[in-house]
Amino acid sequence: MGMVGGGKDAFIGAIHRHAANMDGLIELVCGALSINPEIARDSARMLFLPENRTYLNYEEMIESESKLPAGERMDFLTIVTPNFAHFDPAMLALNKGFNVVIEKPMTFTLDQAKQLRQKVEETGLLLCLTHTYSGYPMVKQARQMVKDGALGKIRKVWVEYPQGWLSKLSEREGNAQAAWRTDPKKSGKSGCMGDIGTHAAHLAEYISGLKITHLCADLNIMVSGRALDDDGNVLLKFDNGAAGVLMSSQVAAGEENALKIRVYGEKGGLEWAQHEPNTLLIKWLDQPAQILRAGANYGDRLSSFATLNCRTPGGHPEGYLEAFANIYRNFARTLSARLDGTIASPESLDFPGADDGIRGMAFIDHVVESSQTDKKWTEFRI
Amino acid sequence: MGMVGGGKDAFIGAIHRHAANMDGLIELVCGALSINPEIARDSARMLFLPENRTYLNYEEMIESESKLPAGERMDFLTIVTPNFAHFDPAMLALNKGFNVVIEKPMTFTLDQAKQLRQKVEETGLLLCLTHTYSGYPMVKQARQMVKDGALGKIRKVWVEYPQGWLSKLSEREGNAQAAWRTDPKKSGKSGCMGDIGTHAAHLAEYISGLKITHLCADLNIMVSGRALDDDGNVLLKFDNGAAGVLMSSQVAAGEENALKIRVYGEKGGLEWAQHEPNTLLIKWLDQPAQILRAGANYGDRLSSFATLNCRTPGGHPEGYLEAFANIYRNFARTLSARLDGTIASPESLDFPGADDGIRGMAFIDHVVESSQTDKKWTEFRI
Amino acid sequence: MGMVGGGKDAFIGAIHRHAANMDGLIELVCGALSINPEIARDSARMLFLPENRTYLNYEEMIESESKLPAGERMDFLTIVTPNFAHFDPAMLALNKGFNVVIEKPMTFTLDQAKQLRQKVEETGLLLCLTHTYSGYPMVKQARQMVKDGALGKIRKVWVEYPQGWLSKLSEREGNAQAAWRTDPKKSGKSGCMGDIGTHAAHLAEYISGLKITHLCADLNIMVSGRALDDDGNVLLKFDNGAAGVLMSSQVAAGEENALKIRVYGEKGGLEWAQHEPNTLLIKWLDQPAQILRAGANYGDRLSSFATLNCRTPGGHPEGYLEAFANIYRNFARTLSARLDGTIASPESLDFPGADDGIRGMAFIDHVVESSQTDKKWTEFRI
Amino acid sequence: MGMVGGGKDAFIGAIHRHAANMDGLIELVCGALSINPEIARDSARMLFLPENRTYLNYEEMIESESKLPAGERMDFLTIVTPNFAHFDPAMLALNKGFNVVIEKPMTFTLDQAKQLRQKVEETGLLLCLTHTYSGYPMVKQARQMVKDGALGKIRKVWVEYPQGWLSKLSEREGNAQAAWRTDPKKSGKSGCMGDIGTHAAHLAEYISGLKITHLCADLNIMVSGRALDDDGNVLLKFDNGAAGVLMSSQVAAGEENALKIRVYGEKGGLEWAQHEPNTLLIKWLDQPAQILRAGANYGDRLSSFATLNCRTPGGHPEGYLEAFANIYRNFARTLSARLDGTIASPESLDFPGADDGIRGMAFIDHVVESSQTDKKWTEFRI
Repeated sequence: MGMVGGGKDAFIGAIHRHAANMDGLIELVCGALSINPEIARDSARMLFLPENRTYLNYEEMIESESKLPAGERMDFLTIVTPNFAHFDPAMLALNKGFNVVIEKPMTFTLDQAKQLRQKVEETGLLLCLTHTYSGYPMVKQARQMVKDGALGKIRKVWVEYPQGWLSKLSEREGNAQAAWRTDPKKSGKSGCMGDIGTHAAHLAEYISGLKITHLCADLNIMVSGRALDDDGNVLLKFDNGAAGVLMSSQVAAGEENALKIRVYGEKGGLEWAQHEPNTLLIKWLDQPAQILRAGANYGDRLSSFATLNCRTPGGHPEGYLEAFANIYRNFARTLSARLDGTIASPESLDFPGADDGIRGMAFIDHVVESSQTDKKWTEFRI
Repeated sequence: MGMVGGGKDAFIGAIHRHAANMDGLIELVCGALSINPEIARDSARMLFLPENRTYLNYEEMIESESKLPAGERMDFLTIVTPNFAHFDPAMLALNKGFNVVIEKPMTFTLDQAKQLRQKVEETGLLLCLTHTYSGYPMVKQARQMVKDGALGKIRKVWVEYPQGWLSKLSEREGNAQAAWRTDPKKSGKSGCMGDIGTHAAHLAEYISGLKITHLCADLNIMVSGRALDDDGNVLLKFDNGAAGVLMSSQVAAGEENALKIRVYGEKGGLEWAQHEPNTLLIKWLDQPAQILRAGANYGDRLSSFATLNCRTPGGHPEGYLEAFANIYRNFARTLSARLDGTIASPESLDFPGADDGIRGMAFIDHVVESSQTDKKWTEFRI
Repeated sequence: MGMVGGGKDAFIGAIHRHAANMDGLIELVCGALSINPEIARDSARMLFLPENRTYLNYEEMIESESKLPAGERMDFLTIVTPNFAHFDPAMLALNKGFNVVIEKPMTFTLDQAKQLRQKVEETGLLLCLTHTYSGYPMVKQARQMVKDGALGKIRKVWVEYPQGWLSKLSEREGNAQAAWRTDPKKSGKSGCMGDIGTHAAHLAEYISGLKITHLCADLNIMVSGRALDDDGNVLLKFDNGAAGVLMSSQVAAGEENALKIRVYGEKGGLEWAQHEPNTLLIKWLDQPAQILRAGANYGDRLSSFATLNCRTPGGHPEGYLEAFANIYRNFARTLSARLDGTIASPESLDFPGADDGIRGMAFIDHVVESSQTDKKWTEFRI
Repeated sequence: MGMVGGGKDAFIGAIHRHAANMDGLIELVCGALSINPEIARDSARMLFLPENRTYLNYEEMIESESKLPAGERMDFLTIVTPNFAHFDPAMLALNKGFNVVIEKPMTFTLDQAKQLRQKVEETGLLLCLTHTYSGYPMVKQARQMVKDGALGKIRKVWVEYPQGWLSKLSEREGNAQAAWRTDPKKSGKSGCMGDIGTHAAHLAEYISGLKITHLCADLNIMVSGRALDDDGNVLLKFDNGAAGVLMSSQVAAGEENALKIRVYGEKGGLEWAQHEPNTLLIKWLDQPAQILRAGANYGDRLSSFATLNCRTPGGHPEGYLEAFANIYRNFARTLSARLDGTIASPESLDFPGADDGIRGMAFIDHVVESSQTDKKWTEFRI
């Protein structure tokens, strides 16, 4: 693995490294960790990277690595820069034959996402998008239960993602994370919806197996002086006729990272909350609700998609880094299978990719468009 | 207290009686408990009503009671019939000088509600509307904290009210509660929104102290064959610029009566859920969240509006009937004060009335109107 | 109903009245509400008692009431005085032909409890002991599930009852509740164990259907200057070989009234907590745990002992007063059946009585004895 | 890092490797992963170990590694074999100059533990004992708050550790984990108390800062046919006069790994549960309880011992593997500091060692001794 971005002053880069490290399948071998040469070098040193694979920009890295022998050069490139800087390194990497892992949202614009998908299709390379929350075992369990019809036809999807960390104008107070995320030039046309609304939308479609067909969005800038939405509520329509709501906010003061989803069908409902991710609550119309637990010993009641994404037995909680590591592990296994010429298991193939990225970018476009119109429903089309 | 409706085959009548009994301040003295004479008589007998005050219809009851001496006749009339049968007995009672307690929603149409309010203003009589959830001590605590500015300016209001009991076409399977609630002739122009959406809307305004100014509604009939909405999602705008969502459903399979509200301001947020009503969670932007408990011994940290609506010390849970009893007790105290010529305490005056009822009826009108239009925002006007 | 004790300065008397009022089956008709004549009169006036049935001591009340005609005199006497003042009025009432309801613990000494039981057996009158927590519907559900063998043979019983309200020497600071409860002359030979440990022991035996045969107690006085135990931990052995622990404290600073029980058998376990009394958690050895809810609509999965002790449908929480009211309602129904010469239903007969009271008094004796000896196990014998 | 035990058929070895991998500070360089040569070789291959550092027994490994140059040989040895096989490789490793990490309980007998401690003292090498639960950030926060006097003098410690996985005689049904843990020859003189009771005892002392001075134990074999205790309840006395209870069971059917601790002092109490490890509940005598969250942004309210053991911001749950990784990371940092000749930070030095291991072994001895005597209190002496 090579890495673009993620220097010692960044947040998500370290998360990616913890996740990639966890299973001993992936090794960081090179990096262009910062556009600031000093930070790039310092960060590389702290990560025990050799000097000759410490690069000062991604072009140099991709170029140099591509010249190394096959068994030696990085197997894939992870891109953990701000949104505006996803496309160029991703496209160059694909062009030079490298698989890529990209932080969400996939790109700065929907058009870029489409270009990347086309390139992926042309090259046959892998593109993985780190929609972390789909890596949780009980999210996968939820998805499989819906797929198996356990809840009957789905009627309702409520997904919410409140955070509180942008309740003040922190971007003016030296908070680097806040600064780029609220800057239209770096983040894109949406703030809150691009940053976390896309996670919520992905989760809703991932678990329900449905596609959003129409939406009606109310985006707000609650902190005056801010340039992008920090809050939004969206009515949803799905392709099977189900109705939904997506609520997302970064000014829900006192909330941490409270992603939660509820899905109701004819026979029952399910509830999953990221703050307690090892529990999946299944509510039945006329029987007691059940508490499904990751890693539990229920015979074959838990789906293989859940159990193969657990590392510990029930009651030994796994968290965010493990969910993230599942994305990496599944990607790595799929990649290994390709390199070995074997066939990856369906469970390994279960990581988000270019199609998810395009839907995410389209979601951003549509909520912004909807928020600016007087029309009630905006069609979700790609 | 006299009662219209609430015979032995009904649901909410018994609830009203438990609530009215609890504090020993109110006595059921007469009733027209059913339009079915046999049920009316049987029910009265089970409630130890004397035969001469067992009536077969409300006209007879109001007429007869009005002729009794002042100290002997009922002090007020409680109306617990289906929605379409609220207005007539209420108007007659007011005309004959009786105070009234009415189940929500106040009437069948907004116009009727306005007429009742006018009559209340003319007569100076009391009208109490049983929006039960505003009777919970920690709901009152929440309201007072918002009023005192503890959370700063309010930015977000999320209120949800999922039930699952109408997930099937129960109105065709002999469920009497389902039958009238889904019948436009008895329930009014909305089903779910009229029945429970009005509670959610009332709670949102009661706690936040704000008024809804605009809304955008998506009402659905999820169970085919049903005549009225059984589900709905509504975007809200409030008069201070806050944004909100109201979600309400009676097809959220597996949910009981899961009314829950979250309100966020500049400094923090609050969360209250009816399923665990003695807890109020206060979340702070940069300090640990706090768990406020009904009846707790925190010195004067709990508002008198909360403490005076508790009967037990902390850790002895009070529930739905106690919240309901608070409405009755506050109403009874206000009435007593009037009869005694004394001044009721502010806490006693805190029960819902005609203005709340009118806003509820307007809410129903507006969500139905909004749901039928292509326009995004519908103004909330009365 | 007549009442001894429970004047306006008392705590538990008001609780009894709320509970007795709730269902409209019981009416307070007379009282000797305080040994202070002024308080007795004031309290009676506030409760709308007629002057001629406002008594200044229990002897006078029992005497006078016994001379009233059968349909007019009180049907039973409720005794809500401190522990030392339970026996005399109870014995006199029984002697004069009145049924009695007594606050727990039943008496001041075990011997008194035995005398009362003998008198009850001789007279055929009813004696009800208000072990409130056994009145909760989900406690009854738990008991029935254990009885039906749902959990298999019981192996473990953990019951805990932490409170924090005696963390300071409040008895010296004008807290009347603290004063008598920590006074050996009024409370008896134990403080914490007598006051709340007895509830925990009763609950353990009530739910498990087992009897304690041996115990090993460690009682403590944690607040120096106090005369009676304010804390205690007890190892338990049951008659089927199960092991257990009973923990009880009134110096668990920050706890309210956190009675909780867990029972484990060969096939699964159950968990019930008084702070959220409408939920019964059932944990299975090899299947997902289930959440059973009071009032829920699961067909016949809930026992009639649970459903007949609910007043509201699922999701409308009932609490402490309703549990208390269940004791009164079942007592009243059993009494009515007797007066009518009919047979009370098994569910009505389910209220604690003299046998429970004797076991409670023996529990107090045994934990105090055990705490003072160097021997590990003390046999529980009566 | 070299590893003894932990082949592909084992449980805890994989956990150690995930934990050691996570931060990129530790690399597995050699292993004697099984006493079965085939499994040893297969496991090594799956872990990408070079053939020349794949060993078939620990003697060979320690011998060979000790001959490698300083920068190349393993820095420390991790021992993840069953209890009976801890001492020999640990002693040999220390004798050959290797630092060691050992799974708990430290050894098979107390005497062995003492020998290891003596050897550690003589050699100046590091010994780390993986009492995982002390690695959780909010456990460290709890410890620091008690140390700082936030709760006042400690009066009560309740620690419980129920599991249900040995509810059947699984050791006879091919469950390898069950087989050795219930075998006195491999596990030691206690089953449940040795396996998980030691964790609970360690946690109680770690958080409270107190030492157990006396205990009274009731150990049970609940599943007939089993050779060692599978359940136990223990009364505790601490060196400051506090009282406590330790409950531990492996037949609490339906429980996963539900370690939980509550500590009460004069001013308040704390509660921490392993199933939701990122939350620390602080209960106050006369103020609302507070919810402290790992990684939260409360200014300096969280101790550096908590914050330096977090990898993610609040709301991104960390779990069991991260707690485990904290033990490894702190050990690695302490080791690095030694190798670099620098001074480790106090936070890095915070990992369990030989003293903890000796107390754990003494705990096992004492609970077994106490359980077999008729005397109430057994003194805890080393």
